[in-house]
Amino acid sequence: MALDIAQSTENTTSEQLESYLSAAHSAFGAWAEKTPAQRADVLDAVGDALDAAADQLIPVAISETNLPEPRLRGELKRTTFQLRIFGELLRAGGYLDARIDHADPQWPMGAPRPDLRRTRIPLGPVVVFSASNFPFAFSTAGGDTASALAAGNPVIVKAHSGHLELTRATGEVVAKALDEAGAPAGLFHVVFGTEAGRTVLLDSRIKAAGFTGSIPGGRALMDLAVSRDEPIPFYGELGSNNPVFVTHAAADSRGEQIAADFVGSFTMGSGQFCTKPGTLFIPRNSNLRAALQAQAIPAGAPMLNERIREGFTQVLQQLAGHDSVSVLAQGQEPFGAAPSPTLLVTGIEDLLADPHMLQTECFGPSALVVEYDTEDQLLQAARTFEGQLTATLQAEDDDHVAELVSVLANKAGRVLWNQWPTGVSVTYAQQHGGPYPATTAAGSTSVGTAAIERFLRPVAFQNFPQHLLPAQLQDANPAAVPQLVNGKPVN
Amino acid sequence: MALDIAQSTENTTSEQLESYLSAAHSAFGAWAEKTPAQRADVLDAVGDALDAAADQLIPVAISETNLPEPRLRGELKRTTFQLRIFGELLRAGGYLDARIDHADPQWPMGAPRPDLRRTRIPLGPVVVFSASNFPFAFSTAGGDTASALAAGNPVIVKAHSGHLELTRATGEVVAKALDEAGAPAGLFHVVFGTEAGRTVLLDSRIKAAGFTGSIPGGRALMDLAVSRDEPIPFYGELGSNNPVFVTHAAADSRGEQIAADFVGSFTMGSGQFCTKPGTLFIPRNSNLRAALQAQAIPAGAPMLNERIREGFTQVLQQLAGHDSVSVLAQGQEPFGAAPSPTLLVTGIEDLLADPHMLQTECFGPSALVVEYDTEDQLLQAARTFEGQLTATLQAEDDDHVAELVSVLANKAGRVLWNQWPTGVSVTYAQQHGGPYPATTAAGSTSVGTAAIERFLRPVAFQNFPQHLLPAQLQDANPAAVPQLVNGKPVN
Repeated sequence: MALDIAQSTENTTSEQLESYLSAAHSAFGAWAEKTPAQRADVLDAVGDALDAAADQLIPVAISETNLPEPRLRGELKRTTFQLRIFGELLRAGGYLDARIDHADPQWPMGAPRPDLRRTRIPLGPVVVFSASNFPFAFSTAGGDTASALAAGNPVIVKAHSGHLELTRATGEVVAKALDEAGAPAGLFHVVFGTEAGRTVLLDSRIKAAGFTGSIPGGRALMDLAVSRDEPIPFYGELGSNNPVFVTHAAADSRGEQIAADFVGSFTMGSGQFCTKPGTLFIPRNSNLRAALQAQAIPAGAPMLNERIREGFTQVLQQLAGHDSVSVLAQGQEPFGAAPSPTLLVTGIEDLLADPHMLQTECFGPSALVVEYDTEDQLLQAARTFEGQLTATLQAEDDDHVAELVSVLANKAGRVLWNQWPTGVSVTYAQQHGGPYPATTAAGSTSVGTAAIERFLRPVAFQNFPQHLLPAQLQDANPAAVPQLVNGKPVN
Repeated sequence: MALDIAQSTENTTSEQLESYLSAAHSAFGAWAEKTPAQRADVLDAVGDALDAAADQLIPVAISETNLPEPRLRGELKRTTFQLRIFGELLRAGGYLDARIDHADPQWPMGAPRPDLRRTRIPLGPVVVFSASNFPFAFSTAGGDTASALAAGNPVIVKAHSGHLELTRATGEVVAKALDEAGAPAGLFHVVFGTEAGRTVLLDSRIKAAGFTGSIPGGRALMDLAVSRDEPIPFYGELGSNNPVFVTHAAADSRGEQIAADFVGSFTMGSGQFCTKPGTLFIPRNSNLRAALQAQAIPAGAPMLNERIREGFTQVLQQLAGHDSVSVLAQGQEPFGAAPSPTLLVTGIEDLLADPHMLQTECFGPSALVVEYDTEDQLLQAARTFEGQLTATLQAEDDDHVAELVSVLANKAGRVLWNQWPTGVSVTYAQQHGGPYPATTAAGSTSVGTAAIERFLRPVAFQNFPQHLLPAQLQDANPAAVPQLVNGKPVN
């Protein structure tokens, strides 16, 4: 059959949008009613097809994003792994959160308890807004798409303007693989253009949205999503400063290592990660400051595109122009479009006096070193941060940092101990999402298997005959999924 | 110590609000850091105190709500049971969703997996907007308060204008019990007045909101919650029509029983339940129609208050005045302020022609009977409904209704088989919440143990030493809570 997928990267027309939305709406029932194991097979097939298309897709990605080939090959591998781990999750079935309460005439509430069985079902068509900085892993076939499809939802991807041709080519591979693996027609589409994205988001057939990008862009789309007659959940991953706190003891015992690792982390990928550490708190006049100054800051590498480079330069100038801020170290002179990686420095009193300004996310290869005197100041500073994706401690095991850990856990989605926030592993326990503005829905994650929960909702069946219940709620439990029976976990 | 709790039901002043918000903010850390078992003991103590205060509280509730004593005593029992079942949940620990991924250098993603451990932590102070129709169970010490406190959050209750004195008195019992059980000062407050509610909702120290009430009221508050600089989750339970679908076979085999049970369900508590069945689909010219006409519709009982009675009368007149609608049966003439329970009737073609109008929720003792010919029309009608709290089938085991069940599961949070939606049991598998406008967050429930999830968010700890991890994430698992270890459930 002919695949109804975009053949060009021109802005999608309103006729095409209507056809895609109608197709997504129609595809929902058939996709949702496949068994989780059947959907897992389809996701595996998409992963295989993308792996097989690597040599076709990677050159397109290089030409559109300036990212180096090894990074892009690694990112594609991560992307296909992600599709497969959702397949594994579907086969295990725990994500269904199956709960069975048997009828209980003596229920101590004071009224008999009926037979109640609760599980999660998919929401309906989902729109996914791609990110600029992960052309594979947070784009066409990335985490939002994988988790929404895994949950049982059709997906419409809004292409990021930074890699239109890659989006078209990836979309074609995905659509063909879905079709060949027996997914319902119309399950997956790609649309191009800002207006197309808005139109899809506002359409009543769309039931949720995923987004990765800037705070202003994400907030504007979130405001649209909640303004609808039927507001829908908007899962936006926006911005983060990702502060790192180094204790006196850690600076003393391994200042040079911390300096080297920190420079590696903030300059990695030209600092174009949402988890780039943007602030480093270090003891004043410590070896660590000297070690940072002595570090060979790498030369700049080209950024994703001109707009991102301009944004970086502008915010960096703003930060560097702050009365209290000076340059601590800098990479070699920029050549071409590459900016010079830059380490700024200020004092803790200045940060505490103007935290909002000095904690602005600067997307690119820069960071702000903040010198402090007492660990009580660290606590004070930690309390000034808005919601973060990550917060990191560099500390020794016998440091007294329990209170700081507690403050940071209340600020961030992931708290790290003696590691670095860049590099977000796709696992069962990963949490990529924190209080606003790090994300628009702090109760969710966009990375890891729990990401599927965003695109599901619970439904309870009361007093149903076995043959009309979803498999996971039947007493016979034919797929052997974990169940919570009368409040107790049963495998 | 002196309890800082409202001594009168006058509108709360801005000075008092500031003092309550500041106290709630301060109380958060100490309450969140208690062990779940310690919080469970405190919730039990609140339940005991409310049970002990029944003879003091019930007369106040009767005088303010017109509800009969047995109903109110039952509701109070439900309320204290609810506090205790959250305690049980805290002691079992599964709600913490503890996940442990051990470090894995060979992780097939292509990069080593770090040690990652994820659990849920409380959000911070929560505002709870009380409901008119459940002065205990969805009010001061009701489900939102119980689940928010259980999760580890301070609570500020906005009193419903329909039972101000009961709110004050219940609040006093709760605050005293919390204090005596060792909860931190300032954990719980009650505020009075519309403006006070808005002020609290918009305050940056408040991190989530619970609400039970009307669609316009709930939407207005939700719009405020998401308009904040830091938008917060707004868990609103708004309106629902709760349609019931009777198949030909069911009408034939037990029409009289269905008629009797339906009349009992829609008139129960003067129809003042969010789960009152508002529409009954029956086969045209069936015995069931005759049985409904033959039912002795009970006499009216006083409604909660004059405003609610006026609203009921207005919507009922609007529905009854529809060209296609006539009165099928009615209770005895109203006396005093009690409205006459009323059963209206229309045809399926008329409902399909004007579904939005004919599906308007009419809060009070009325329902609309809709006569249909074919079960295909039932499917068509089911598809016209907006999001619902419940949808019910009255059918026989060999009816072919799988598609109808599937459509209804996509419309409602709870689907019932041969039972009635009124009476919402507090259990592990309960789901009270469906797609908008039934609720503003369809992924959540306001009844049952899963309600606690609304007031928690996940946080991951990467590479942490054991002594700095929450107990549920430690390898030794001292509280013996369920853990997901490397993706596999372990009890």
